[in-house]
Amino acid sequence: MASHARHPEKGTLVTGQSLLDDVSLPAAVIFEPALANNIAWMQRFADDHGAQLAPHGKTTMTPALFRRQLDAGAWGITLATAVQCAVAFEHGATRLLMANQLVGTPNMAIVAGLIERGADYCCVVDSVANVEALNRFFGARGVAVQVLIELGVPGGRCGVRDESALAALADAVAAAPAVALCGIEGYEGLIGGEQAVERIRGYARQLVAAVRGLMDAGAFGGRKPVVTAAGSQWFDLIAEAFDQADLRECCTPVLRPGCYVVHDHRSYLDALAEVKARHPELEGNLQPALAVFAHVQSLPEPGLAVVAMGKRDISCDPDLPIPLQRHRPGEPAHPLRHCTTRKVMDQHTMLAIAADADLRIGDVVSFGASHPCLTFDKWRQVLRVDDELRVLEAMPTFF
Amino acid sequence: MASHARHPEKGTLVTGQSLLDDVSLPAAVIFEPALANNIAWMQRFADDHGAQLAPHGKTTMTPALFRRQLDAGAWGITLATAVQCAVAFEHGATRLLMANQLVGTPNMAIVAGLIERGADYCCVVDSVANVEALNRFFGARGVAVQVLIELGVPGGRCGVRDESALAALADAVAAAPAVALCGIEGYEGLIGGEQAVERIRGYARQLVAAVRGLMDAGAFGGRKPVVTAAGSQWFDLIAEAFDQADLRECCTPVLRPGCYVVHDHRSYLDALAEVKARHPELEGNLQPALAVFAHVQSLPEPGLAVVAMGKRDISCDPDLPIPLQRHRPGEPAHPLRHCTTRKVMDQHTMLAIAADADLRIGDVVSFGASHPCLTFDKWRQVLRVDDELRVLEAMPTFF
Repeated sequence: MASHARHPEKGTLVTGQSLLDDVSLPAAVIFEPALANNIAWMQRFADDHGAQLAPHGKTTMTPALFRRQLDAGAWGITLATAVQCAVAFEHGATRLLMANQLVGTPNMAIVAGLIERGADYCCVVDSVANVEALNRFFGARGVAVQVLIELGVPGGRCGVRDESALAALADAVAAAPAVALCGIEGYEGLIGGEQAVERIRGYARQLVAAVRGLMDAGAFGGRKPVVTAAGSQWFDLIAEAFDQADLRECCTPVLRPGCYVVHDHRSYLDALAEVKARHPELEGNLQPALAVFAHVQSLPEPGLAVVAMGKRDISCDPDLPIPLQRHRPGEPAHPLRHCTTRKVMDQHTMLAIAADADLRIGDVVSFGASHPCLTFDKWRQVLRVDDELRVLEAMPTFF
Repeated sequence: MASHARHPEKGTLVTGQSLLDDVSLPAAVIFEPALANNIAWMQRFADDHGAQLAPHGKTTMTPALFRRQLDAGAWGITLATAVQCAVAFEHGATRLLMANQLVGTPNMAIVAGLIERGADYCCVVDSVANVEALNRFFGARGVAVQVLIELGVPGGRCGVRDESALAALADAVAAAPAVALCGIEGYEGLIGGEQAVERIRGYARQLVAAVRGLMDAGAFGGRKPVVTAAGSQWFDLIAEAFDQADLRECCTPVLRPGCYVVHDHRSYLDALAEVKARHPELEGNLQPALAVFAHVQSLPEPGLAVVAMGKRDISCDPDLPIPLQRHRPGEPAHPLRHCTTRKVMDQHTMLAIAADADLRIGDVVSFGASHPCLTFDKWRQVLRVDDELRVLEAMPTFF
């Protein structure tokens, strides 16, 4: 019986099935050895820098992966929306760092329900209006909500832009009995361009100064605050700034990379090379763990192969999918050289291939991509496989 | 209780709920009046041109919409993959036109199961190798599979490129007892650029000539063949070419537009203007029916609003989302002027707004987009609403 990789509720996917022989393609797969390596690598990185790890769960929205990250030592799971928090909590994650504003009564109601059921939840705030709305809702509900003040960057995304706005916001939180201040949050990933490294170091110092300033002002009422930032590109710079013995004594530094869990085949691969260039002492490496497997369906003219995979199946942003290997049942995987993605449509990928490429209709091609978030969200389940392409687990996603 | 628009299996979404008051945002909605208009408009267009309509289901993968299209008179549903065909069949669509090659044993097994359960299924072929693979699989299974020969365009996607390849393929099908030829298929949407209209007219004539040629050669064994093409951009040109009394007598012309069902706010809007310029006699219009509603979450600096909606929620391809209206409970919707999308991230949209824009944190903004296929696939359900933003139905999707 053929397995539907797309619809877990309909499928008959069985552990031990062969990806090439038994599974309807296209399918998204995660290689277990690379996955295990990545989870351990980033946890060790955080441990070595005296920081806690709250992996960003929005990348994968795959609770089976949250479980692996928590079991490896993660302090909590970071999420982006109330619904994502509900998914994580329903699957056993109890410390939820929502690195985003909580807006809208129905979303607040979802979060209040989680807090009432025991979730250790916090979100971020960057406006007095939002603090007041939270205070009205949670006050009426008789529940307190924890918040981190978000420190932004000019021209960036959310977050207060200067010290006076920060102070005014802290005052607003202090005046809101149903809102409890628990730290400072930032996201350095919006800083790029020239002198990005120096500017990110400066931003990290600002975050530390902000949490120290609020602590000195007694804004946390004796509770140990959180200071948190770090995506998967510049995490080393944030970790450096947070790695201070006296800071750890009085607050909890938290790193929040997400994409590292499966890494990628281009953009984060390049970013990690820069991390390692800055830190030659770092041992090991993150490894690309996520691929999409699909069939060659047509070889209609010389130099062109059409593959049964499209924008519905794999990230095309910021890079087009990267053909990795050719797979035939019973043969070793074969690297695909002189083969590049020319165009991707909803359900098709056009590959430019060498005129003498040994590619047949029915061959399977594996693809890597940049930006794993935008591959995960195409799938209702991803298949964890071993290096022999045996299915170990069908992991449902909750986008 | 707040409703999760994202996870139908978890939600408590109730007909009659208010989108603004009761539903967790972001949410994707379809306006019933525009939807009903579009379904009727395109069915009437096909009827008026003597063609059958097999709407492309891959656009929405929403069986509740397939039902509406079939009830309005559609001849069948077009799909792109075996799994999509299984979804459509399990929800009551029995005539399945898979406008794509069927490749891979597990996919063939899915299709064989549908045929055994009574599906009237056909796929397309463009290579002898694929015909032979189909014949081996379906022959061993003791089931016949119907195929259409795909006629492609040089530099395009799949499909045979010339008459000799077409003839060789027809011979291969004739020699394959488990493969039954039932027509000719093409897709004109790959033809663009200069003189697109003339080139598409020429391609449509080629399709008609090919089906007539095969008929004359007795390739269909007396059965009435199908000739099919037409996406949502150039459907009028294909319909013109198919609209011949003597052609209808001997074969079944089938149009396959998909996006028309919800139309869009830019690319297909422009395409329809061109259709109507070519055909001033056409009455009525398709109307944009799909929108995503999301909250303003941050107003961090003058001229910038951050909205809690991102690439996970709406198509950004080929155009960035288009802000439509501001919504506040109890107030009439307000058009958003001088407001444009500056950047979209995974979970955030940055809007450039006028310095004096009346936009508050917690306001709801509705967005349109281009290319509805890439908005539908972000959602596990879409909400059908009336013009007062009351939820009429939560329609699950099956991507």
